[in-house]
Amino acid sequence: MIQNAHLALGVCDYPEHVPRNRWASYAAQQRALGLSYVRIAEFAWSRMEPRPGEYDWAWLDEAIEVYAAAGLNVVLCTPTAAPPAWLVQQHPDILPHSAGGCPKQFGARRHYDFCSPVFREHSARITRVMAERYGQHPAVVGWQTDNEFGWGDTTHSYSPAAAAGFRAWLQARYGTPEALNEAWGNVFWSMEYTDWAQIGLPNGVVASDPSPSHLLDFFRFSSDMVVEFQEAQVATLRECSPGRWVTHNYMGFFSAFDHYKASACLDFASWDSYPTGTLEALHEWGLGSEDLAVRYARTGHPDVTGFNHDLYRGVTGRPLWVMEQQCGQVNWAPYNPLPADGAVQLWTAQAWAHGADVVSYFRWRAATMAQEVMHSGLLRHDETPDRGHTEVQGLDLSQFPAGDVNARVALLHDYESLWIYNAQKQSAEINYWAQTFLYYRTLRSLGVDVDIVHPDGDLSGYALVVAPALTLVTPERAAHLGEVAQRVPVVFGPRTAFRTPSGRAHEDGQFGPLSGLVGARLLNYDSLRPGMAQRLTGLDGSPHEAARWAEGYRVQDGAVLSQYIGGPLDGQAAAVRRGNVTVIGAHSEGLVREVLTALLEGVGLSPVFLPEGVRLSKRGDVTLVQNWTASPIRWNGLDLPPVGFQVLTPVAEPLPA
Amino acid sequence: MIQNAHLALGVCDYPEHVPRNRWASYAAQQRALGLSYVRIAEFAWSRMEPRPGEYDWAWLDEAIEVYAAAGLNVVLCTPTAAPPAWLVQQHPDILPHSAGGCPKQFGARRHYDFCSPVFREHSARITRVMAERYGQHPAVVGWQTDNEFGWGDTTHSYSPAAAAGFRAWLQARYGTPEALNEAWGNVFWSMEYTDWAQIGLPNGVVASDPSPSHLLDFFRFSSDMVVEFQEAQVATLRECSPGRWVTHNYMGFFSAFDHYKASACLDFASWDSYPTGTLEALHEWGLGSEDLAVRYARTGHPDVTGFNHDLYRGVTGRPLWVMEQQCGQVNWAPYNPLPADGAVQLWTAQAWAHGADVVSYFRWRAATMAQEVMHSGLLRHDETPDRGHTEVQGLDLSQFPAGDVNARVALLHDYESLWIYNAQKQSAEINYWAQTFLYYRTLRSLGVDVDIVHPDGDLSGYALVVAPALTLVTPERAAHLGEVAQRVPVVFGPRTAFRTPSGRAHEDGQFGPLSGLVGARLLNYDSLRPGMAQRLTGLDGSPHEAARWAEGYRVQDGAVLSQYIGGPLDGQAAAVRRGNVTVIGAHSEGLVREVLTALLEGVGLSPVFLPEGVRLSKRGDVTLVQNWTASPIRWNGLDLPPVGFQVLTPVAEPLPA
Amino acid sequence: MIQNAHLALGVCDYPEHVPRNRWASYAAQQRALGLSYVRIAEFAWSRMEPRPGEYDWAWLDEAIEVYAAAGLNVVLCTPTAAPPAWLVQQHPDILPHSAGGCPKQFGARRHYDFCSPVFREHSARITRVMAERYGQHPAVVGWQTDNEFGWGDTTHSYSPAAAAGFRAWLQARYGTPEALNEAWGNVFWSMEYTDWAQIGLPNGVVASDPSPSHLLDFFRFSSDMVVEFQEAQVATLRECSPGRWVTHNYMGFFSAFDHYKASACLDFASWDSYPTGTLEALHEWGLGSEDLAVRYARTGHPDVTGFNHDLYRGVTGRPLWVMEQQCGQVNWAPYNPLPADGAVQLWTAQAWAHGADVVSYFRWRAATMAQEVMHSGLLRHDETPDRGHTEVQGLDLSQFPAGDVNARVALLHDYESLWIYNAQKQSAEINYWAQTFLYYRTLRSLGVDVDIVHPDGDLSGYALVVAPALTLVTPERAAHLGEVAQRVPVVFGPRTAFRTPSGRAHEDGQFGPLSGLVGARLLNYDSLRPGMAQRLTGLDGSPHEAARWAEGYRVQDGAVLSQYIGGPLDGQAAAVRRGNVTVIGAHSEGLVREVLTALLEGVGLSPVFLPEGVRLSKRGDVTLVQNWTASPIRWNGLDLPPVGFQVLTPVAEPLPA
Repeated sequence: MIQNAHLALGVCDYPEHVPRNRWASYAAQQRALGLSYVRIAEFAWSRMEPRPGEYDWAWLDEAIEVYAAAGLNVVLCTPTAAPPAWLVQQHPDILPHSAGGCPKQFGARRHYDFCSPVFREHSARITRVMAERYGQHPAVVGWQTDNEFGWGDTTHSYSPAAAAGFRAWLQARYGTPEALNEAWGNVFWSMEYTDWAQIGLPNGVVASDPSPSHLLDFFRFSSDMVVEFQEAQVATLRECSPGRWVTHNYMGFFSAFDHYKASACLDFASWDSYPTGTLEALHEWGLGSEDLAVRYARTGHPDVTGFNHDLYRGVTGRPLWVMEQQCGQVNWAPYNPLPADGAVQLWTAQAWAHGADVVSYFRWRAATMAQEVMHSGLLRHDETPDRGHTEVQGLDLSQFPAGDVNARVALLHDYESLWIYNAQKQSAEINYWAQTFLYYRTLRSLGVDVDIVHPDGDLSGYALVVAPALTLVTPERAAHLGEVAQRVPVVFGPRTAFRTPSGRAHEDGQFGPLSGLVGARLLNYDSLRPGMAQRLTGLDGSPHEAARWAEGYRVQDGAVLSQYIGGPLDGQAAAVRRGNVTVIGAHSEGLVREVLTALLEGVGLSPVFLPEGVRLSKRGDVTLVQNWTASPIRWNGLDLPPVGFQVLTPVAEPLPA
Repeated sequence: MIQNAHLALGVCDYPEHVPRNRWASYAAQQRALGLSYVRIAEFAWSRMEPRPGEYDWAWLDEAIEVYAAAGLNVVLCTPTAAPPAWLVQQHPDILPHSAGGCPKQFGARRHYDFCSPVFREHSARITRVMAERYGQHPAVVGWQTDNEFGWGDTTHSYSPAAAAGFRAWLQARYGTPEALNEAWGNVFWSMEYTDWAQIGLPNGVVASDPSPSHLLDFFRFSSDMVVEFQEAQVATLRECSPGRWVTHNYMGFFSAFDHYKASACLDFASWDSYPTGTLEALHEWGLGSEDLAVRYARTGHPDVTGFNHDLYRGVTGRPLWVMEQQCGQVNWAPYNPLPADGAVQLWTAQAWAHGADVVSYFRWRAATMAQEVMHSGLLRHDETPDRGHTEVQGLDLSQFPAGDVNARVALLHDYESLWIYNAQKQSAEINYWAQTFLYYRTLRSLGVDVDIVHPDGDLSGYALVVAPALTLVTPERAAHLGEVAQRVPVVFGPRTAFRTPSGRAHEDGQFGPLSGLVGARLLNYDSLRPGMAQRLTGLDGSPHEAARWAEGYRVQDGAVLSQYIGGPLDGQAAAVRRGNVTVIGAHSEGLVREVLTALLEGVGLSPVFLPEGVRLSKRGDVTLVQNWTASPIRWNGLDLPPVGFQVLTPVAEPLPA
Repeated sequence: MIQNAHLALGVCDYPEHVPRNRWASYAAQQRALGLSYVRIAEFAWSRMEPRPGEYDWAWLDEAIEVYAAAGLNVVLCTPTAAPPAWLVQQHPDILPHSAGGCPKQFGARRHYDFCSPVFREHSARITRVMAERYGQHPAVVGWQTDNEFGWGDTTHSYSPAAAAGFRAWLQARYGTPEALNEAWGNVFWSMEYTDWAQIGLPNGVVASDPSPSHLLDFFRFSSDMVVEFQEAQVATLRECSPGRWVTHNYMGFFSAFDHYKASACLDFASWDSYPTGTLEALHEWGLGSEDLAVRYARTGHPDVTGFNHDLYRGVTGRPLWVMEQQCGQVNWAPYNPLPADGAVQLWTAQAWAHGADVVSYFRWRAATMAQEVMHSGLLRHDETPDRGHTEVQGLDLSQFPAGDVNARVALLHDYESLWIYNAQKQSAEINYWAQTFLYYRTLRSLGVDVDIVHPDGDLSGYALVVAPALTLVTPERAAHLGEVAQRVPVVFGPRTAFRTPSGRAHEDGQFGPLSGLVGARLLNYDSLRPGMAQRLTGLDGSPHEAARWAEGYRVQDGAVLSQYIGGPLDGQAAAVRRGNVTVIGAHSEGLVREVLTALLEGVGLSPVFLPEGVRLSKRGDVTLVQNWTASPIRWNGLDLPPVGFQVLTPVAEPLPA
């Protein structure tokens, strides 16, 4: 629905935060900077409806006119992420409840429960009146629903409303308590229910040790509540604002709802990209290391940002927006360093190369009040242009033409597998994202573009399919993957097909319904603590090491690609191949790299061994060569500036072989 | 009551977890593997009584018949560790309360409050109906009450029922609030009560800083509730199941109730031995080190396992059972490595040598559902024999004959001392177990067997008595120890006799009623932070260091064995001897080792300096020489395989001098 | 009001903790030790009023007589820090509430809510009856109100009473919700209120992320509640006990109320000095390092103790008392090492040199009961003199004459700046105290005495004014500082004048109302994670490094003193001078030291480069040279014993140049 010839830019602005006498000047400056889009009205419910049923649109009418007059396209947000105080006062039961069982109070944002019928009514109401007023305004080109679903751990609410909703959801899913008992395996520890009313939420149980099946269904239910909430707003916007697109701005790596389901009703997905903050968070999740956190402190890690671009492009299969793009320091990580010189341009270019049609900076002027005082904007608190402003000014957008990302490698990702994997990680050092990211990072380090797609989606266009952590596999999914494997190589990681849809282990063991395809059976998995490693053979004989996780197989109908050396797994297969299908049981950077390299070569995708911090991303027929390090790098005849990039067009500068 | 000629084996099985068509096959396989016992019906309340008062025994009748037909002896469990959902629905007040004051919810296990009169009724009822039905079944040889009392921090409940019970218990103990005030020293901070109703539980006070006397009595009360609960079930089982033994399966190092009192009504004690998981936990408690955790990751530490065998043999003074023996990876520690090859055999052999008559593996087949999916069994999820199965198959049980553990060294252990010690540790690096374990480990490293016994018990059979952390000493206890010291050497560790029975300090200082016996007085204690050490003289002049804790004495009537060099304790005695009594004030591996070595030699117990990871354990006249390291060790003419052992019988292979 | 010719000593005693037959003997021993003051009756409410309205004064009458007879001056405490159980039983709503929303229970101390009208009545009542009885007793020389306001995190209560009080306080401050909304910037995230009843306390909001303005006003309100509580007691004591002084014993670095406001009604301030425990706490706050914690484990750090002496002398501008002085090990830090030999004397001497007229040791005899059993006193549990007793005995008080501390350097400190700084630290490694302490420690390492004073106070007597972290600056404050700068050099640290009084950022950016004075504007701030450093030029060209925080400036009307080299701040000014005013934006030990050294030289204060652990403090014309290390140090012709000091009087021993 967006038809710019090349990358366009935008900004998030909050006219209600500044005096009206600034509006025209800000809009003019934005246009002068080359911005085309302005996102407004997010969190502005208390200004739209200062008291119950009393609407005040004058300020927003005027703001839209001012932006329109300056030539900016306006993106409007439904304001539901910040319900006003009077609504909470009227209906305190709209508040979400923490895992400790207490209501989360008014005083920040997202203080609503997706399960609250009352809040859903008010969400529908404010969406409708807003859409009716502005839905056909010529300057309004699209909508963002709400903001950052789930921020502040608000996807999972432990309220009475959530408990009631969960019971109804279970009843609809299972029909009888007996069926639920069987699905969850509730005979274990006498957890069998005889009455729906006996079923609680999974918080607060003894030893904080609920059944993984209980957790899995609670996560599914909570995700469905988000999806329903999104769908209701989108339906209203479609009705009242024809011809405009609708999106939502997701958060990086956010795991608490199924972004595929939540995106089915959108025109495209957006996300909020904060590379330095996300790197710190990564470090905290055990995905990174102290060394990595220092090395990439001022840029973030290329594959962390790249992963999320590819992820949110993949949830709809269409180009995405970066709805909020960091353009200076953030304020929410344990440490919040300034970005390096060039980082804002680099982030913008990478976003484009990974499929972003629009990059919209957060925010115009740094907030002089409240929770985000320490966060940067394009303007400083004193309204002077900040460093990010200068970088945006220096961007030549014509070098970023529209086009498709034509990735030939599919990396399969599935929220249900994520939930059940992380419900029983079996090690403090491994989790779904860490395992998935190893494969993604390896592929990127080999210079290939990657689509991140749902395992049940259309995989017909790919030359290689990589499924790092597909632990939940149904017979239907197995059949689908079997068809894919008839055509192209498929790679599976550890724990593949360990789980049934209800979170049990397959009665016939791993690989359950994939057993025939894989040609091997699981013998043992090993949780390696820090300080332990498991040796294994490489493809060419030189040994590798596994860390964090290793599982060994017995081959039934295939070939051993790698086997463990020494330790309890000695002699078991670490990787097995049967026809097009390879399964890798070891969390081994070296082995994963070797296997993927060989497969890429086999399908003609020509892997390239990139130096640390160098990345290639291709959109249409233009290649972006990036240097994420603080030093200049000469690579393959190219001089890459520190924290910078070169754009290679097919005619002018062919990529060296 | 068990009269096997040698070690027997068993397994924990859950027929209700698998289809009935598996039962006969499983039982036959168990028998073929050489197992004699099968423990069943644990956690099966929801299958025994699916709805209030509606019993279903058909499945259990059949299961018992199937096992019996295969020649297995059946151990039955009362199912009270997992009350069914309908009971919680009827009586939500049976739930235990967390220290935060909230009920712990249904959804795992042990969701009952030992203080709940309602739950005690239901416990009595289900125990009776079960015992009446199966108590005289010929295949049923014994009973396990409940399961793992206190798991999930459920010994201490902070419920209204607990508060009411605690007040009644205090009233019975003290008679008047004035007497309680005096005992606790409540004049301090004006904590005096004038009415029983004013007394709360010790949770939730300002700064989480309750009086240690308040804590001590709450811990005593909570322990008594467990004991009463156990006694009630045992009485019913004795009545309805004559000729069968009764036991309970304790947990390693579990501290929240007095296992001596809880065992008084049992025939013998059992415990659940998970060496790798317990090692990780040890590491978390500050007892171990990162290095230790890596070195013994695949076997656990010999003395950790050994300590608990000796502890639970000691609580009744009779041979024990290992009711649940790890036979593969566990699922509940931060890291859960696979056991080394040979570890299951080594654990089994060590258990026998420390007095286990039966070792019963947990569990037959790995659970395919719920909380323990990741935990191993003798069979894998797919019913193939797992590594532990193979090891069990290789065991020659005839080399493990019945017999007594004839330890000549008694290590004194007292839960009341533990509670009051840990209530005011005075250092993040020291605690009751760490101090006790230092002495135990040292004794084991010197090749001697140890009984762990209650300080007020019969000590007449021992050549050496070691009391590492006996901080609570009454005049009666002092008199008893004085009598012992007339006969044999007695060693005391730091903080000995610092406390009165109500948790105050003795008015005449340490060593209170032991002062005359010890011949010294406490001058100062020092809490050494990491990075600090206190030097002291050794017996032969070469210096040692104390870490974590050091206390210095003034000698009144005895001899200085060691004194501090430098620092605030310079010149104070670090160890004192008066006649048969030695007190060691320094937490010093070197000094403890020297003193114990000399005393063992003095009483003719011939200490042996064992290499790291080598251990000796003797049962009857058979000695088990163990190698807990991953490398073969040649020691004293013996070739010890890695993670393996040799059995030395007196005639065939005398232990080298 | 105290007119001793030299330092006097005292002790905290609790006659109610020991039998009456000890009283006379204890008092005689105290006098013999050279003590002049005894502080009693703290926490003794349950003995004064055993039951509601039934007073028992006999014991206290007698105790006062005994001390008086021995020649001791008696300091009485109001007993309100420990309300008796019967009062809590009658009025459970006097309990303070935790941030989790639960009442903190009876069972320790300080279990009262400053906001409770009921408790305020009882506080007034018990204060009056006590003051009426003893206010004119000839042995009673002064009063301590309550004890350690805020201990156990009790300044901030989240009770219904606090919520009601907060709303009333806000209404009085702002008049209308609209004014409050504007002050806090509540348009952000739609946080606008339309009704006072909508306003809650800042706990429990989503993501624990309340508005900093919300926090700031809640902290102000809570502080005011403490001040009102103090003022009410003081007014009663003034009325009933004429001619006696009144003080309160504060805690080191305690931040939760404004000690200037709380001290306005006092004659002088006191504090409780526990050097070893405070060092451990420091380490936990990220202010210290593991290395520092080990090095000063047995003495505490000189500047930590010195800072608090100077702070609490400054809150009234008059000599202070150390009401509780550590004289052996404490019991409340993670590690509680014994003080080094000499430490008690060194602490006492330092306290005197920093303005203490009286040092009163805590406590006479170590408690044999309850929460403080492990804490030392001058006597051991067994009533023998402990190490601290010996050191006190060795003190020659005549070497510590009365006199003024004539510091010429003022370090500005402001609780409102502290609160708003720490509400949004922007880095886990920096906070208000860490930033302030860097400047204090540097000044002390240069041998100069420091007054710590409120920025709005009289600064006319100083030759140099240092404002390390004055982030909240109003126009009035700016004007005041401008006047000061016309006369003497003024140094500002990072974040100066970033905030408005309601916690917003200045609309014209940093330095807001100070911009003209400073002659520079903030360009960027940078949060440096561990492992990152920012280079900068020093005054003489040799480079320094900034850690934790760096902010860069654009000079408008001044000179660049230092500028950043490399990194995102490359070329920006790191320090700027305009006339008498210097602002330092880098958290750089090296740069701060250079700038302060030059300024001290410029104003003729002759900085001295002291070795590690050596400190100079001057009172009147006597200089105390201290060695806080464990080794003897020869410095400038002086032989300083380890953990010891020399007193230099102007005639006898002039300080070497």
